[in-house]
This record gives sequence, structure tokens and C-alpha cells, in this order.
Amino acid sequence: MRILVVNPNTSAEMTASIGEVARKYASPGTEITALSPSYGPRSIEGHFEEHIAALATIETVAAHAQDYDAFVIACYGDPAVEACREITDKPVIGIAEASMHMACFLGHKFSIVTVIPRAIPIMESLVRKVHLESKCASIRSTNLAVLDIEADPERAVVEMIEEARQAITQDGAEVICLGCAGMGPLDQRVQDAIGVPVLDGTACAVLLAESLHAYGKTTSKIRAFARPERKELVGCSELLRQLSGQE
Amino acid sequence: MRILVVNPNTSAEMTASIGEVARKYASPGTEITALSPSYGPRSIEGHFEEHIAALATIETVAAHAQDYDAFVIACYGDPAVEACREITDKPVIGIAEASMHMACFLGHKFSIVTVIPRAIPIMESLVRKVHLESKCASIRSTNLAVLDIEADPERAVVEMIEEARQAITQDGAEVICLGCAGMGPLDQRVQDAIGVPVLDGTACAVLLAESLHAYGKTTSKIRAFARPERKELVGCSELLRQLSGQE
Amino acid sequence: MRILVVNPNTSAEMTASIGEVARKYASPGTEITALSPSYGPRSIEGHFEEHIAALATIETVAAHAQDYDAFVIACYGDPAVEACREITDKPVIGIAEASMHMACFLGHKFSIVTVIPRAIPIMESLVRKVHLESKCASIRSTNLAVLDIEADPERAVVEMIEEARQAITQDGAEVICLGCAGMGPLDQRVQDAIGVPVLDGTACAVLLAESLHAYGKTTSKIRAFARPERKELVGCSELLRQLSGQE
Amino acid sequence: MRILVVNPNTSAEMTASIGEVARKYASPGTEITALSPSYGPRSIEGHFEEHIAALATIETVAAHAQDYDAFVIACYGDPAVEACREITDKPVIGIAEASMHMACFLGHKFSIVTVIPRAIPIMESLVRKVHLESKCASIRSTNLAVLDIEADPERAVVEMIEEARQAITQDGAEVICLGCAGMGPLDQRVQDAIGVPVLDGTACAVLLAESLHAYGKTTSKIRAFARPERKELVGCSELLRQLSGQE
Amino acid sequence: MRILVVNPNTSAEMTASIGEVARKYASPGTEITALSPSYGPRSIEGHFEEHIAALATIETVAAHAQDYDAFVIACYGDPAVEACREITDKPVIGIAEASMHMACFLGHKFSIVTVIPRAIPIMESLVRKVHLESKCASIRSTNLAVLDIEADPERAVVEMIEEARQAITQDGAEVICLGCAGMGPLDQRVQDAIGVPVLDGTACAVLLAESLHAYGKTTSKIRAFARPERKELVGCSELLRQLSGQE
Amino acid sequence: MRILVVNPNTSAEMTASIGEVARKYASPGTEITALSPSYGPRSIEGHFEEHIAALATIETVAAHAQDYDAFVIACYGDPAVEACREITDKPVIGIAEASMHMACFLGHKFSIVTVIPRAIPIMESLVRKVHLESKCASIRSTNLAVLDIEADPERAVVEMIEEARQAITQDGAEVICLGCAGMGPLDQRVQDAIGVPVLDGTACAVLLAESLHAYGKTTSKIRAFARPERKELVGCSELLRQLSGQE
Repeated sequence: MRILVVNPNTSAEMTASIGEVARKYASPGTEITALSPSYGPRSIEGHFEEHIAALATIETVAAHAQDYDAFVIACYGDPAVEACREITDKPVIGIAEASMHMACFLGHKFSIVTVIPRAIPIMESLVRKVHLESKCASIRSTNLAVLDIEADPERAVVEMIEEARQAITQDGAEVICLGCAGMGPLDQRVQDAIGVPVLDGTACAVLLAESLHAYGKTTSKIRAFARPERKELVGCSELLRQLSGQE
Repeated sequence: MRILVVNPNTSAEMTASIGEVARKYASPGTEITALSPSYGPRSIEGHFEEHIAALATIETVAAHAQDYDAFVIACYGDPAVEACREITDKPVIGIAEASMHMACFLGHKFSIVTVIPRAIPIMESLVRKVHLESKCASIRSTNLAVLDIEADPERAVVEMIEEARQAITQDGAEVICLGCAGMGPLDQRVQDAIGVPVLDGTACAVLLAESLHAYGKTTSKIRAFARPERKELVGCSELLRQLSGQE
Repeated sequence: MRILVVNPNTSAEMTASIGEVARKYASPGTEITALSPSYGPRSIEGHFEEHIAALATIETVAAHAQDYDAFVIACYGDPAVEACREITDKPVIGIAEASMHMACFLGHKFSIVTVIPRAIPIMESLVRKVHLESKCASIRSTNLAVLDIEADPERAVVEMIEEARQAITQDGAEVICLGCAGMGPLDQRVQDAIGVPVLDGTACAVLLAESLHAYGKTTSKIRAFARPERKELVGCSELLRQLSGQE
Repeated sequence: MRILVVNPNTSAEMTASIGEVARKYASPGTEITALSPSYGPRSIEGHFEEHIAALATIETVAAHAQDYDAFVIACYGDPAVEACREITDKPVIGIAEASMHMACFLGHKFSIVTVIPRAIPIMESLVRKVHLESKCASIRSTNLAVLDIEADPERAVVEMIEEARQAITQDGAEVICLGCAGMGPLDQRVQDAIGVPVLDGTACAVLLAESLHAYGKTTSKIRAFARPERKELVGCSELLRQLSGQE
Repeated sequence: MRILVVNPNTSAEMTASIGEVARKYASPGTEITALSPSYGPRSIEGHFEEHIAALATIETVAAHAQDYDAFVIACYGDPAVEACREITDKPVIGIAEASMHMACFLGHKFSIVTVIPRAIPIMESLVRKVHLESKCASIRSTNLAVLDIEADPERAVVEMIEEARQAITQDGAEVICLGCAGMGPLDQRVQDAIGVPVLDGTACAVLLAESLHAYGKTTSKIRAFARPERKELVGCSELLRQLSGQE
Repeated sequence: MRILVVNPNTSAEMTASIGEVARKYASPGTEITALSPSYGPRSIEGHFEEHIAALATIETVAAHAQDYDAFVIACYGDPAVEACREITDKPVIGIAEASMHMACFLGHKFSIVTVIPRAIPIMESLVRKVHLESKCASIRSTNLAVLDIEADPERAVVEMIEEARQAITQDGAEVICLGCAGMGPLDQRVQDAIGVPVLDGTACAVLLAESLHAYGKTTSKIRAFARPERKELVGCSELLRQLSGQE
């Protein structure tokens, strides 16, 4: 099968590293393509940037909707996952929801270790959106901006281990979810240090996309994720107009 | 004070009618401007369209951020409310959250009467996002598309009254929130028919914006709604680049 | 419009200061009257006192029901708010519910800073009654009795700032609600010190009462807040007997 | 032991019948006294009446605090239970909370069958206050006013059975709680008809009071139910002034 | 009446001490028999052991179902309580659920003080199963294994007091539930030290069993706890086969 | 990899059919073994039978713990899943939790269509245990006993389609989970009839087990699922004694 992994931000290095993680854990028969949109923020750390990236992600998925069997949205805010489920019936998986659900099979509660403190309220809303508040022991931030992780992975791994340890000893976490796609390459090192399962969302989402594909399941189109209604889009790209059934 | 009411869709008629509702209930000293974005869908009935409208709304608010004292987002999906709270510290109010909170002062539980059935799961997620699930008696759809309301208000009012009645007698609602900005001009007619308070979100949001302004309160910038981090935006408009501190 | 602000306790100084806060933030066209009941406790810090004050508040509202357009109950336990909604259809707003709902428009989560520790469980029940538990970051007590605030505002402001700071840094609060009507005059000083919005319930309630009045909305009488059933009251004042339809 | 069962309303017939139920299920060694206050409403069907009855209940408990080992508040709104826990450390049990907790030992979910429809929102708030929302299958009203039950028990039992049946077959109830103290004498007849346990709150509360007494447990005075703070009460009875430590 | 108190583990000393506690608080007319199963673990500290003990408990209750009026399951994991409710209609009470419900009548929130840290997630699931999460201030572990309590009660009482103190001062507990049947004999000593009610589940369960018996209530057999369906059991004891209606 | 699929009941036909479903959806490189215990009930429809099956399942997993890479517990009550997570660190997946989590990626809400009505309260508790109550639109029973499904699949499919349709049109379900392992072979037929995704838990669990294995993740042993404490087991099989570290 073919999975398109969309990195919603425009950092090419991060896209490459996300692609590597995806390929590392994908089944032998799975072909992974990692792409980022042609426009948008270099990293996503707030609501404003997420909205630009969300639209860019929709366009990226739409442009390749015919060519892939499933789509992974590789930003730990799950931008545009619902919208992408409207424009294709093939599986669309966000990495945050993927890691949280997967964590439930491995321990009593999970904690999320993420980037700078302003991410905490965003993650709180996200956990609530995934309906797993009561399985989430805590959300802990580091002082790492998204792009710091790749710039200085040694510092990153130290900070991540420290917060993961606190989550385990103070908050009751038994599994750690890495709250940024950029943290994926460090999952094993953190896990080795702390001794509990550490989950990268990209890996989880790729595996879930494979699972849904293997089981032959596609998104329910009965209501929430029905195709967009046909309607007029003013001042939008041809691609978006096509999605709304105009052309 | 000056309030900018943004209709996130591009239906000029709807923008005009939203503006009228806003002016009708605003205080004498309040100046209302109703605008819609220069691009985007003519109506919003799903996640796909909401994402386009959300970005367009952000740009609209940003373009006028200096000229107004508060901002109302007049679509019953509250698109981009959080992002707009990041790019300005002046009050930003979504009409859905406004009507739901206001309803809590008028009755034991509220129901939302909205447009076509696919809106129901979207509204369910919205009520959860507003944290008022346990105050919401039900969400009821009509067979009205957003643009049907203005096209045939007589049919609209009949369908709205029917669902509102069911909400009261079957679901335990004591207040009705109108689940579409386009329904605003019909609030009084529905209320007269059913005998319980009927709330239009635009009216509620304008009044709350006035209240926050009168009390001198602005959005907390400590964490969730801090200014966007300064960062590179690829392939974006000058306006968006300015918002991310680049120019 | 005319708003009656009822201070449910019998401290005349506190009634005066609540009236001042109310007038400070009310619209120019709003006439504020602040009253306290003719009987009851000098301050309210427990369930016992609240019950006396609740009945006294009902009598105060009833005695003036014809003369005002809306009623604010200015004690941060919201005593008798539901009962007052039964005996009049004009808006009745409790200051606790007012500040909590208003806080939702200004930040991700709010904390309540209140008086002596025994208030904490009472506030926990109150937040639950307002259905906003999941928006409340924490409830923090000071060592201040209600009457200490006015007696020694300098000490009060120091203690309030300290707890508000803890709420922000330890608990994730982004907005502070002042958990006692007597704290109202200090809202600005606390806000200046901590840099996030600080809400006084009286101010919030007055503004919401104005909003509901401007929008022409009155309490739903369909079920929860229907007029009291006509019935015999033994050994009660003429006023209470009138309310139960006897005279 | 000696239990004071307070009927918060002033219907002497109802007090007598509550006393009979209490005696019927009490242990041989328990002495039951059933009293109603000297003032207040003949029946309680709304918030207004409940506040009068609450204060009257407090005075009744206070007047006899020395003479009894435990107190049962026999109105299915649990008026003044918290306040009474402040003024004595002996067990105070409300009949609503008693029947809901007891129901949890007998079936998967319980429903409440109560009086006129306006009681439903009041009961919804009550179930929430008892923290057992997720154990409550439904709240169903009859067309019976409180005083109708004693006036026409044959009609009452028919209506109660009908609603209990609906609760079992439609809502998933496995246990029925009778939502009015006046329904107590009919518990066995309803149970015989529907074949699932039917709980009267007075019986449950008496048995729980006996249990707490037998185990030697008294109300925690550490915070929520600490003795009232010593303070000035204006214009109140000597009894109330004593409770606040003044005399 | 006759109550069978089943200690699900096979420690004879613990069975004896549980029986003593039960007898201490039971009514004069109640005859207590304390038994442990003929097989199973000497103590229960995890899911694995609980499953063995659960089946052993079912067999113990079944073997004596005709001879007793009610059954208490005296392990703070409430093993097999639902299954036992299926095989008899007489009251079956788990000591954990008993102490948690009883605690609700004595204070605003309870904490559980239990054995080794691995018990914490088990207790968290248990509190959720009892539906009282929002009444539970915290669950605190000691370093005591189950059998340590009897082996060294002096050390046990010191550790229990320390954690109970923390629960009161840090977590807001007003009542303490002892999270292990073996802690029962120490309830009074802990209570004397900390000054808030301390509840042993065995005592609570015995009293509740007496209450349900006195009120003549038996388990609802309408759905969740209906008799086991008649069916073939392969390779099971005659007793179990009888329970499934085969013999 | 090698997955052991344990059918906790002793119906050989059902074990065979579960094995077929598992093989149908497993990856080519996965070897599936389906087993049932040597003792226990022929089908599981209540708590009593589940406890026997749970212990039998533990013994089955323990006996083969060295020979497989992951374990699937194929009964829609998830018996003994937690206990099996204690006795091995390899992934253990229950089919109920598997289908519920998987459903979250395919639609807004899921419903469970299950066997006879007495299963409904059991499933309600199960959904709560999985922490996905707010994603579950409804639980609907048929009149099918577990063994009826295989005995008369034509009748079964008709009843399942009828309830699934009701779930979609009345309850808002967008995905259907089949609430019995025996329903697995019918998933495609129900799906073809109703047009929304229909999930069999065995298929979901096998795919999730493959995913966790591919990602190299094992159960967290830090607390909830740590190895059983070493202790004495009286009167138990050698296998169980080994598990408790005795031999």
C-alpha cells in the first residue's frame, strides 16, 4: 500500500526525518511518501500557524488523494484531520490521536511530553477532542521550540527524559507520548532512559493506517465526514474549487 | 466603541443581515461594521469549508485589528476564534460560545436548533469544546441549508419552530440557541411561537463584546493566546507574514 | 435601565463598596441600587449563614421586584439565584456564575481566589453547579475572612496576589476570578500585579444583566423557574405569602 | 438510639406518614421522632419554597440538636443537609442522597420517579450534586402534586407504576427511587407491581443513620462542615444567634 | 440475620481479624461468619491474583448461599461482587464500594489510603467503577504489602497516619477510606491521630448489608444481575455446574 | 510474528470461526493460532461465566506465553486482559477495547450491536472501563444468545442489520462495533447492508497486536501491569503457582 505522510509545516529537514521514522516502522510492503505543503509556517506552535498549515494540509492531501491508500497528518495538533476525512474516504490519521489511542493498550495512563509551555493548553484541548482526558495523566512541556529539537537533539533528549521522568514519578504516567512530530527520531533513546513505552505519533499513525487498510475500512460518510456540499468558493484555487464540486 | 462583526462566509446578503441584527441589539454608542472575507465559501456546512473560512477570517480580523475594539466571529462553528485571540488582545467572541454561555443565565438547559443533519456531529464537538455538554439538552437539525434560510424564511421559521418545540417537550430544553448566523433575523418569530427565550449568537456576542470592553478586559496573553511566535512563513501573504512577526 | 444589586449579607460598608463597583462599570444609562437585607449575617462563610442570607435575599428581591429591570445577587455563593428566578421573570444573575462564564471568553482556564480555606469545598460545589469544572484550573484560599478584606485591604491585596500567582504558575490559570464580593474594589490592583485578567463577579453580573435586558430576554418559565405553585405558607411574612399566591 | 426525622414542610399528615415509614424500618432499639417546622410551606415543589423550608429545617434541627443521635431530612430535595452538618457533628442524612447511594448496591442503574414535571430539572441538579449522574438512568415525573399523593393514593400508585415501568423498559433502570417523601407508604405496592427494588428515601436514610451511629462516625469538621464562624446575625431569632456563637 | 463475610484471600489470620471487625460493629442480632476460600492467594495485590480469588469467592458464596441473609466481600478490590449478585438475590456488598458510598455522608471528599504503589492504578479503576471519581480527593499508597499490616501493625499505623495527613492537607480529603481489609483493626487509631472520620470497608459493608436486609431489599434481577443463563460448563466443579443450571 | 488468539469460551466451533477471521485480516507474515481453554463455559453472557472464563484465559495465555509474540482475548467482555498484561510483557489486546479505539478513526461516534439484552449493562460498564463513553452513541441488543449466531447466521444477520440501522438513524452512530466475537464472520454482510464501517473486534485486535509488535512496544511494567508479586497460592495448579513466582 501507499501512505502519504503530510508534515503540515514547511521545514524540509523535519519532513525528511518524519519520513524516515515512518519508513522505519512501516511494513515491508508499504511505500511511504513524506511531503510538506508548498506554503505555510516553518513550524507550528500556536493556533494562528495551525490554521495556515491546516489549509495547506488539505490542499496537499487533495492534490494526491488519488495516488495513496491512506494519509497521515504528522503534526501533534492533528490539523485538518476532520476536513481531510471529508475530501477522501481513505483512512486519514492524525499523529496525536494515534499515539493516545495506542497508549491505552500499553499502560494505565499516558502523559504527553511536548515543546514550549504555550503548547500545554493546546494539548489539553486536543486530549479533550480525542475524548481521552481521563486516560491522560499529565501534559508536560519542555523549553524546546519545535525547530530546536532537530537543531540540538542532545539537549532535546535530556529535556524530554527529565519531563518524562517527572510524568512517571509525579503524575502516574505509565506510557509517554511524544508531543511533537519532530521528536520521533528520539523515541528509542528516551524509552531506554526511562524504562516505559515511549510512543511517537508518526509511527503509531502509519501502523494504524496500515491496519485500517488491511481490514478494508474507510471513513464513514454518513454524516460528520460526508463529502463537502457542492457550493461556490470565491477567490480560491482551482483545487479547492474542485473539492467543493464546482469543477 | 467599534465592533467588527466578521461573517466568515462570502454571502453578501448574509453579511448584511448579520450586520442588521448586530446593530439592532448593540448599545447606542456602539458602531458595528459587518464584513465578510474577500475569499472563501458562500456558506459553511462542513469541516472543509470551515478551514478555508477560518483562514479568511484570520486575515479579515488582522487587516482591521487596529481599527476596532472587539471582534465577533459570526458563524455558528466559531471558526478561528482562538487564532484571532492570538493576533489581537482585544476581545474576540464566537457566536456559538456566546449564545451557549448566555443561555445558562436564562434556563436549566438549552438546545441548539441548526441547519442540515450533517451539522449535528459538528455541533456536538463544538458544545464539547465550549465545555457545556451537560447544559445542552439536545442538538436538532432542520432540513435547511445555510442559504435556504434567507432564500425562504417562511419555510425556515416553520422548520425551526417545529424542532424547537420538540427540543422543549422531548429533550427538556428551556432555552433555544439558533445554530446558524443566518437564523438571527428570525429569533423573535420563533420565540413568539414557542414561549421560551430564543438566542441568536450574533446578538449575544455583540453584547458580550460590549461588556468586556466596558469592563476593560482583554484576552489573557499568558499562554494559550500569546502572540504568535516569530517565524518564517513560506508562500504566504504579506499580511500573514506580518502576523508572524517577520515584517 | 434599573438594576438592583443585592448584597446578601448585612454589612453596610460592603453593600456600599459593592454598589460603587457596580456603578463604576455599569453603562451610563443604567441606574444601580445596592441594598442588603434587613436581617441576616454580617458576612457569609458557610452553609448555615448562606441559608439565612438566601431567604433574606429572596425577600429583598421580592419587595422590589416591580421597581427594577434586573437583579444581581452579589455574594460569591450565588445564594437564592434559582429561587429569585422563580419569583420574577426579569434577569437574575449571580456573581459567581457571571465571573466564571465571562472568564471563558478571556483565557483557557480560570482559577478562583477566595477567602478562608473552608470556602474551598463550597466553591468546588459551586463550580460544579455552574457546570464549568473542566474550565476551572484551581480554587485557592487566602487566610482572609470576608470582613478582613475591607478592614485591611493592603494585607488582602498581598494575599490575593500571592495566590493568583500560584494559580497561574502552578495550576495553569489564565484568568483569575475573585471569589468574594468584597474583593471587587481590588480587582485592578491584583490585575496590575499579575498581568492576566482579573474578574470581579459584581462587575460581570451587572454587565450581563445589561446585556440580557438590551436583548430583551427574560428567564424561561417553562419548567425549572416557573412561578411558585400557589400554596399555603404557615407562619410566614405577608410578602412570602404573596409570593406563593395566597394573597 | 434516637433519630429525629424532620419533614421540612408543614403538612402534619405527611409528617405522620413519614414517621410511620421511618418506624416501620428502624431497628427495634431506635426511637423515631417525626417533626415538621413551625413555619413554612405545606409542600415543597420549587426553589422558592425549598429556601423557606431549608431555614425552618435548620431551626428545627438546631432546637433539638442535643436530644437526638442523628437527623434525617425527609424531603426529596435534601434541603439544608449541608447546613445541618455544620451545626451538629451527629450524622445528618438527606433522603434523596440516601436512596441514590443505596440504589447503587441493588442494580446497575436507578431511575427516580417523582411528582409534577417542574421537579425534573430540580432533580437533575440534585443527582449532579450527589455526583451520581452516571448511575441515574432517568428522572420521570408524574402529574401528582406532593399533596395529591396522600389525598388520592390509588391514583398515585397507578401513575407511579406507569412511570416506573417506562423507566425499566425504556431507560434501563434496574432500581426505582421514589422522588418524594410522601410516596414512602406506597413503596411496597409499586415494587410488587414492577418486580424490581423500589426505594423510599426515608427508610434508606433512617437505616444509614443507624449505620453511622453504630459505627460511631460523625461528620468531618475539618473544612466543608466546620462549625459556623462566630459572627453577628442581625434581626434573627435567638436560636439562630446561638448557632452563630453569639449567645 | 446471618452475614457471611468472605475474605477472598487465604490468610487465616486476616480472615480472623476481618471477622472480629465485622462482629465489633454488627448489630446484636446479627450473626457473622468469616470465611476464606479453600484455594487462592495468601494476599491480593494485582489483577492476576484477584482473578483467582474472584472465582474462589464465587464458589465460597455459592456453597453457602442458602445459609446466609447477606454477603460481604472483604477485599478492597471488590472481586466478584457482580458475579455473586447473579448467583443469589440476597444482598452482596463489596467493602470498597461500601466505604466510598458511606464516606459521602460524612464529608465533602474522601481519600483512599492503601498498600503498595501498584495498588494505585487498580484503585483508580475501582473508584471509576463505583462512579465516584469526582468525590475522591486522592488515592495514596504506603509501602506496606497486605501481609505487612498484620505482621507489623505499629509500622502500618505510622505509615497510614502519614498518608492520611497528606491526603487531608494536600489533597482536600475530609474522610479517609482504608484501602485494604487488613487495615480494619487500625481504623480507630488512625482516626484518633488525624481527627477526621476513618472508614473501614468491612464495617461499612456489614452495616449496609444489615440495612438492606432490614428494609427487605434484594438485588434487582431484571438485567445486569439476572441468574446465570443455563449452559454447559466444561471441566468445572459440580458446584459451578449447578450454578449454571446444569445439575 | 505469532499471535495467540484465545477464545475464552469452550465452544470449538466458535474458536475455529474466530481463528478464520483472525487469519483473514492478519498480515501474510503473521501466524495465527486460535485456542480455547480446557475448561469453562460454552458461551459467556454474564459476570459469573466471565469469571470462570477469565481464569481459564489466564492459564491459557500463561501456558503459551513463551511461544507467541502477542495475545488477543477474543470475547467482547475483555476478560482477564489486565491480568494477562501482568503475566507477560508482550502485547495483550482485548477485542472490545480494540474495536472501540479503532472506531474512533472512522467516524464521529460508534454504537455496539450485541447479543441478548442482559449484555447491555455489562457493555455499558465495559465502555466506561475503556474510557470512551462520550464516543459511544448507544449499545443495542438483539435477541441472539451467543451460540445462536453460529446456529442460525441468517437470522443473526437480519437482527444485527436491524439494530445497526436503528443505531445510525436514531442514535447518531457512524460506525458499528460488533459486540460478540461470534459475530465476526458476519461483519461484511452487515456493512454491505447499512453502508457504514462495521468493525469486528478480533480483526481489530489482531491488527493492533501486529502494530505494537512492529513498533517493538511491550506493556509498561512500571505499576498497573507489573509482574505478580511473589506469593503463596494455596490449592492452585502448578502453572498458577509458577506465575506467582513460587516455582
